[in-house]
Amino acid sequence: MQTIETLLNHKTIRNYKSDPIDDKILNTILEAGFRASTTGNMQVYSVIVTKDEQNRKELCKFHFGQKMVEQAPVLLTFCADFNRFNKWCEQRGAKPGYDNFLSFFTASIDALLVAQNVGVAAEAYGLGICYLGTITYMADKFIEFFEMPKGVVPVASFVIGYPADDPERADRLPAEGVVHYEKYKDYSPGDIDRIYEEKENLPLTQKLLEENQLPSLAHIFTEKRYTQKDNVHFSNVFLKVLKDQGFMNND
Amino acid sequence: MQTIETLLNHKTIRNYKSDPIDDKILNTILEAGFRASTTGNMQVYSVIVTKDEQNRKELCKFHFGQKMVEQAPVLLTFCADFNRFNKWCEQRGAKPGYDNFLSFFTASIDALLVAQNVGVAAEAYGLGICYLGTITYMADKFIEFFEMPKGVVPVASFVIGYPADDPERADRLPAEGVVHYEKYKDYSPGDIDRIYEEKENLPLTQKLLEENQLPSLAHIFTEKRYTQKDNVHFSNVFLKVLKDQGFMNND
Repeated sequence: MQTIETLLNHKTIRNYKSDPIDDKILNTILEAGFRASTTGNMQVYSVIVTKDEQNRKELCKFHFGQKMVEQAPVLLTFCADFNRFNKWCEQRGAKPGYDNFLSFFTASIDALLVAQNVGVAAEAYGLGICYLGTITYMADKFIEFFEMPKGVVPVASFVIGYPADDPERADRLPAEGVVHYEKYKDYSPGDIDRIYEEKENLPLTQKLLEENQLPSLAHIFTEKRYTQKDNVHFSNVFLKVLKDQGFMNND
Repeated sequence: MQTIETLLNHKTIRNYKSDPIDDKILNTILEAGFRASTTGNMQVYSVIVTKDEQNRKELCKFHFGQKMVEQAPVLLTFCADFNRFNKWCEQRGAKPGYDNFLSFFTASIDALLVAQNVGVAAEAYGLGICYLGTITYMADKFIEFFEMPKGVVPVASFVIGYPADDPERADRLPAEGVVHYEKYKDYSPGDIDRIYEEKENLPLTQKLLEENQLPSLAHIFTEKRYTQKDNVHFSNVFLKVLKDQGFMNND
């Protein structure tokens, strides 16, 4: 079944050819995205398409210099967006009540389901994608760059383009590590050892430990990749963004 | 192309046959979910599978009595989950710094991409799904029911089963209403009228206006479906959940 194969064969692509994406393909991919489920059929999201080379160059900086932003022909930015819906309500004389945290989260869910549909559709066309976590860390910069009004917050972003390499699929934890039946079954120390065993024994992991001179893969995450200091900093940036974009009027 | 067709033909299914889902199909669908992109390959999510009839009956109440929760054979609950990752870090002597808002949002993104992949995979097998927005409104109740520890918050849920009817696809706004190029182009009053025209003129809309004796579809949303009062209430419930589950230590 092609759909299942598309999903099972997902790989993050980090090197792209410069070949452009045909507008007809791009439009079909986006249409496939807009068929995703959406809360109350409100479609409280927007997508920003970046093709312009100069724009991609500037955006690459905010995305911590990840080179695929410059290299791939298209960058997509998915936003939680109540701006359009609010404007519609006001224009019809209805009073919108969507300036609160729940509404932000609802719109984020909408935007993320669209993003994933678009990603899957792109891969069905032989295109590759790479999600950029930097979109939430630097949300304030992207809001400024894209000139997003109140009610709009970027929540996901990925590049699309034709792959210039064919990497291995990334490893994943065994399913038993992430699926629960009927109740959440908390993890014993033995469960944790078993679930992470394969990942910890990968040659890639061994290489990382040597390079970083750290005692475990977990230390690579806590001390190098996703440190408390960075997480706290970006939490406050993002919470300020929610306030500034009008999503924190919770009383 | 089957994948694109699967995506374009998505319909929310609200009536289900009682036929069970074969475990092999369910496992393949879940595996397809776990191939979704995940931040730093941390897989900070969990899925809870509910098949038990009594559990579905009880959960139906928390889902505002939406009958498909009782009717469909499987209910899936997708959680932002740093519990497993934190336990792993601690067991290896690394100090996790994931008790903050950014980490919650990162884990939510992870969980939502998995959810959407699982939904698409289910539809490829001829199954139907229906997302339940109630999962975030009643997050505190679901945490209690499923016995979720700190670090775990449910962010999406849907039922899966074999469709007992074949509804029309839902309407969607024209693509021009949700796509922006290079910069966010804010909406003029004329844009809003044009974007919402088709939706406002649907027979379904006319029926709703008559039934509710309201002047516009926008009023149906603001006064009936998603009111400010409810949104503020559920914002506070959800923010308290984030605090209680250990995701609001932002300093």
